[in-house]
Amino acid sequence: MTDEPPLFERAALIGLGLIGSSLAWAMKRDGVAREIVGYARSPETRATALRLGFLDAACETAAEAARGADLVVLCVPVGAMAAVAAEIGPGVSPGAIVTDVGSVKAHVIAAVTPHLPEGAAFVPAHPLAGTEHSGPESGFAELFDGRWCILTPPHAAPRRAVERVRALWERCGAQVDEMTPERHDLVLAVTSHAPHLIAYTMVGVADDMRRVTSSEVIKYSAAGFRDFTRIAASDPTMWRDVFLTNKDATLEILGRFTEELFALQRAIRTGDGQHLHDYFTRTRAIRRGILQAGQDTAAPDFGRPHPSAEKP
Amino acid sequence: MTDEPPLFERAALIGLGLIGSSLAWAMKRDGVAREIVGYARSPETRATALRLGFLDAACETAAEAARGADLVVLCVPVGAMAAVAAEIGPGVSPGAIVTDVGSVKAHVIAAVTPHLPEGAAFVPAHPLAGTEHSGPESGFAELFDGRWCILTPPHAAPRRAVERVRALWERCGAQVDEMTPERHDLVLAVTSHAPHLIAYTMVGVADDMRRVTSSEVIKYSAAGFRDFTRIAASDPTMWRDVFLTNKDATLEILGRFTEELFALQRAIRTGDGQHLHDYFTRTRAIRRGILQAGQDTAAPDFGRPHPSAEKP
Repeated sequence: MTDEPPLFERAALIGLGLIGSSLAWAMKRDGVAREIVGYARSPETRATALRLGFLDAACETAAEAARGADLVVLCVPVGAMAAVAAEIGPGVSPGAIVTDVGSVKAHVIAAVTPHLPEGAAFVPAHPLAGTEHSGPESGFAELFDGRWCILTPPHAAPRRAVERVRALWERCGAQVDEMTPERHDLVLAVTSHAPHLIAYTMVGVADDMRRVTSSEVIKYSAAGFRDFTRIAASDPTMWRDVFLTNKDATLEILGRFTEELFALQRAIRTGDGQHLHDYFTRTRAIRRGILQAGQDTAAPDFGRPHPSAEKP
Repeated sequence: MTDEPPLFERAALIGLGLIGSSLAWAMKRDGVAREIVGYARSPETRATALRLGFLDAACETAAEAARGADLVVLCVPVGAMAAVAAEIGPGVSPGAIVTDVGSVKAHVIAAVTPHLPEGAAFVPAHPLAGTEHSGPESGFAELFDGRWCILTPPHAAPRRAVERVRALWERCGAQVDEMTPERHDLVLAVTSHAPHLIAYTMVGVADDMRRVTSSEVIKYSAAGFRDFTRIAASDPTMWRDVFLTNKDATLEILGRFTEELFALQRAIRTGDGQHLHDYFTRTRAIRRGILQAGQDTAAPDFGRPHPSAEKP
């Protein structure tokens, strides 16, 4: 895209799933690093990465990948961050920048920071992008285009390191924002973590309903349920770790959710139509805000493929 | 589309919102009725219908629209069905077919049947199609293309009338299924009514969160929350009526939902990662079923417009 020189000499990606492989493709697209090396626990994933061609080299250990790199990106599930940081820590160059892509930030900072050598800068990041697929074959260069990436730099992080991580993500197509880790974890609990748990729950309930065959649930899923299933198809390991490491904020939002749900259930049971109507009118406004902010399309079915899409 | 002769001489649409206006457009597209007349409570809606051209005539009362029609389609919110049926009942021709488009079926059958003259056939129907928009300007002929329409004919309905309503929907682009009203109301409670209430609740909670500004919720909505807001932007009157008239099935599903949600919350609180992982793995399978059944696309962001959509 740009003709700018590389930002980094040697970028090391630890973890080569959807995000790691997409980041490699996006960095290659824009020439962000002179060399991209990577590590994944499974030999099959490393072989796939080399076959697909998004890495210049695949290393046998995380420590080997990180050694000599001026950029290290941790792309493993949040629950694996501490172990990976402990493994690579001793070999990380003092001038290196270490960053991550985890969906939870306060926990990751606490897990990673103690293992890094003095002089290495940790700049946590969270790209808000994903698909329902996982693994090294699911990555693509455009995943981050137009998406947000939130940085949560600790006070100790040198400004120059923060700006280089910002430039990394901008050159990979993202828009970059900064906030504190605590605020990130609360905002994401509302916009992502609680909605995911709720979607997982609803899909589990539907699957459990022996009185309704799953073929009926699938056949008529376009009536609303379908949109929950996409969310509930996300990577189980990643999401287990998100809930366990952003426990307090997630439980707080879920507590409020349950309160509201009970109030609405009570309105249904007692036939309080006014309460329901008022509530449903209020929620329309937030939708309009999302459309105005360009964060979604108002086309029917999200603009999904439709048998006759010529109109309107 | 087809060159088949009209199925009906005079079709009367009572209610001219998203579904009523879309049905008019779809019937016109295929020449399903020789004449399409309609009624809406508001004079503005009637004027809009004539201006847009999806009606041959707009009537001043529902009774006048239904008089002399061989097909009457009730396209009003479920809670208004009884009053409309009482109004048109005396004027409905003995040989006429009356149908509806309500999202709840047992209640509508109980509300409408007593008001119809002997010899008129009531064949309840529910097209599973919609957008987040409402009103006469939001309709379009393709809304039902490739979507399901469920018929729930009472035993008393003559087979010939059922087949004509089936042909009506097939010529409007839908696939038609039949089941009992009770089964319909349970299946839809799982696939549509409970998911809608849950989405409304989550959007209400987000809107309420004083610690998170609504601009943040909107800005980062693509992380999961966005998909809830589309569902929660649906017509408040329609949905109020759905919950009040499919109370038992909806409350049953919500009860099971709450049970499961509490179990997952407890797993988060106690750090039971195995429970979470197992649950999230199970829900992936139902998603695969939906993709295999052609009921959704696996493209990132539901195939939404994306800054660089050339690939993959």
